[in-house]
Amino acid sequence: MDLSERTLIEYIREKAAVSSGDLIRGIGDDCSVFADSKSGSWLISTDMLVDGVHFNSKWHPARLLGRKSIAVNLSDIAAMGGIPRYVLIAMSLTAGLSTSWVFQWLDGVFEILREYDCALIGGDTVSAKEMTISVTILGERHPSGILFRNGAAVGDTVYVSSPLGSSAAGLAIMEKISKNNTMDDSRWEPLVQAHLNPVPRVHLGQLLCASGCVSAMQDISDGLATDLGHICKESGVGAVIQERLLPSHPILDEACSVFCLSKPDCMLCGGEDYQLVFTVKKGCEKKLEEYLDAAGGHPVFAVGTIGQGQGVSLIEDKGTSRDITFKGYEHRI
Amino acid sequence: MDLSERTLIEYIREKAAVSSGDLIRGIGDDCSVFADSKSGSWLISTDMLVDGVHFNSKWHPARLLGRKSIAVNLSDIAAMGGIPRYVLIAMSLTAGLSTSWVFQWLDGVFEILREYDCALIGGDTVSAKEMTISVTILGERHPSGILFRNGAAVGDTVYVSSPLGSSAAGLAIMEKISKNNTMDDSRWEPLVQAHLNPVPRVHLGQLLCASGCVSAMQDISDGLATDLGHICKESGVGAVIQERLLPSHPILDEACSVFCLSKPDCMLCGGEDYQLVFTVKKGCEKKLEEYLDAAGGHPVFAVGTIGQGQGVSLIEDKGTSRDITFKGYEHRI
Repeated sequence: MDLSERTLIEYIREKAAVSSGDLIRGIGDDCSVFADSKSGSWLISTDMLVDGVHFNSKWHPARLLGRKSIAVNLSDIAAMGGIPRYVLIAMSLTAGLSTSWVFQWLDGVFEILREYDCALIGGDTVSAKEMTISVTILGERHPSGILFRNGAAVGDTVYVSSPLGSSAAGLAIMEKISKNNTMDDSRWEPLVQAHLNPVPRVHLGQLLCASGCVSAMQDISDGLATDLGHICKESGVGAVIQERLLPSHPILDEACSVFCLSKPDCMLCGGEDYQLVFTVKKGCEKKLEEYLDAAGGHPVFAVGTIGQGQGVSLIEDKGTSRDITFKGYEHRI
Repeated sequence: MDLSERTLIEYIREKAAVSSGDLIRGIGDDCSVFADSKSGSWLISTDMLVDGVHFNSKWHPARLLGRKSIAVNLSDIAAMGGIPRYVLIAMSLTAGLSTSWVFQWLDGVFEILREYDCALIGGDTVSAKEMTISVTILGERHPSGILFRNGAAVGDTVYVSSPLGSSAAGLAIMEKISKNNTMDDSRWEPLVQAHLNPVPRVHLGQLLCASGCVSAMQDISDGLATDLGHICKESGVGAVIQERLLPSHPILDEACSVFCLSKPDCMLCGGEDYQLVFTVKKGCEKKLEEYLDAAGGHPVFAVGTIGQGQGVSLIEDKGTSRDITFKGYEHRI
């Protein structure tokens, strides 16, 4: 079918537009937001992962896949500065799966749920030819508010949490290792772990929300090029980012060289880093960095600026500029 | 994998048990229930449908499948007497699907959402080899309360809404028609429609909730034998039902004869009727029937009684008794 996910979602978003007293945000952000009867709000988001598309059960250890199945949803709550609370899991299992695989997967699920003080409250299990994992997560609004995608303004500074590109490189390494059936050396472990067991930035998201300095935020699931593109589109602004300022793990250069990977592609288009990209209100940069230092030190990196226009431009190390809007990972469906 | 869905869910339910101030009901009912910050509550449920397992995209018209994808979730809200509010859809689409199929499916989705004053607020679309539809629904608690599965008591009367067995017969007919590539006569239309386009009993669920007469309720998705089994298990009671009292569509007898189907199997084990099974407090039967009459006439049928012990027994037309606990539809995974 010649239809991009983004085109389909745009159509659905238009059709689904409703005005409802207690629906604060519908389709088009990391989570939907609805109010409860009085002053609180709930954030809700759902994600679907398919074996062979979003993960590979042949080489992804079951426990780590259990963790990641929840982590990618926790990251959506993190992207709004929220507090994760409840999870529902709908899952199709295949005849070829062993019972021990399922229980290891569940161990990973419960492990990460405990770490984030989050409860599994419902779900559905079915059988199918393909394994599919669909998680719905509910979070509470942070007392300080909610960080949407649409608050970026001209003059804001674009920040990312670190590092970028590790997951894309880790995926490429795992695919090569699994193909050649060889274990590689442990040098690449930080990259491989970033792919197999990403850490959602829930605590950082809450700090950024509480800081009062952030105007828009989103998690980096489809690559910075696409995810910053969402912020620009929703906010009606453009962004210029500097390649030389993008943070990466120290081993990424070497991995790109050994495995013939493009470092900019890993950092901008690879996706699945589950870091945060956010814009800081003009003049608040120093205040934010001091706030994060006082909160125990959480490295974040200014990588560009918000300007007029639209889309995301990259100033490359060699001085040239190119448009990278929505050049991240996108499924054709 | 030699593991039943019920065994797996029992394990997960035990592991997931949490005590949380605002979680009113976790795994083990039609919906989970959590409180909002003040006096209200939200009901939430998720379901997964897989092509070739829960539906067949080769012969299920796209618009009706769109309606049914939402209807099965509305039915979970109906089963607690709730008010449907929000829906999220995660869906995997296959390369073979036409764009027009997707838009017809969406037409059905939006049509039924409008009918029940429910909004689509989020989702995810991915590509896969198999089509999978996972819907999460949120509903509000009815002002009168919530009807759980665990309230049935000895002496209560078991009721069902009507008819039972239509969907199972309709499915069997559709499978025969599609296999022989022949259109059959229109006699079977009520049965076929019950399968293709089931009507969730949302309004009836709310009336039953408001009546104050009902002690436990559940929707019939896996067959009366299994779904009444859940009420018995959760309530710590047993049930005896009378075959002669089970309501069915007038055409069901003839269809069973023509298509060589077992009528008791259709009515007790087939599932997908999305009718309601509920228990009425001892002595409240007349009050309930008057209440429903006054509300415009909603036929419901007393089919048995709640007693001590456990499980569900059927008194057959021929006078013999047999255990049918959890004899409904169950996936092996």
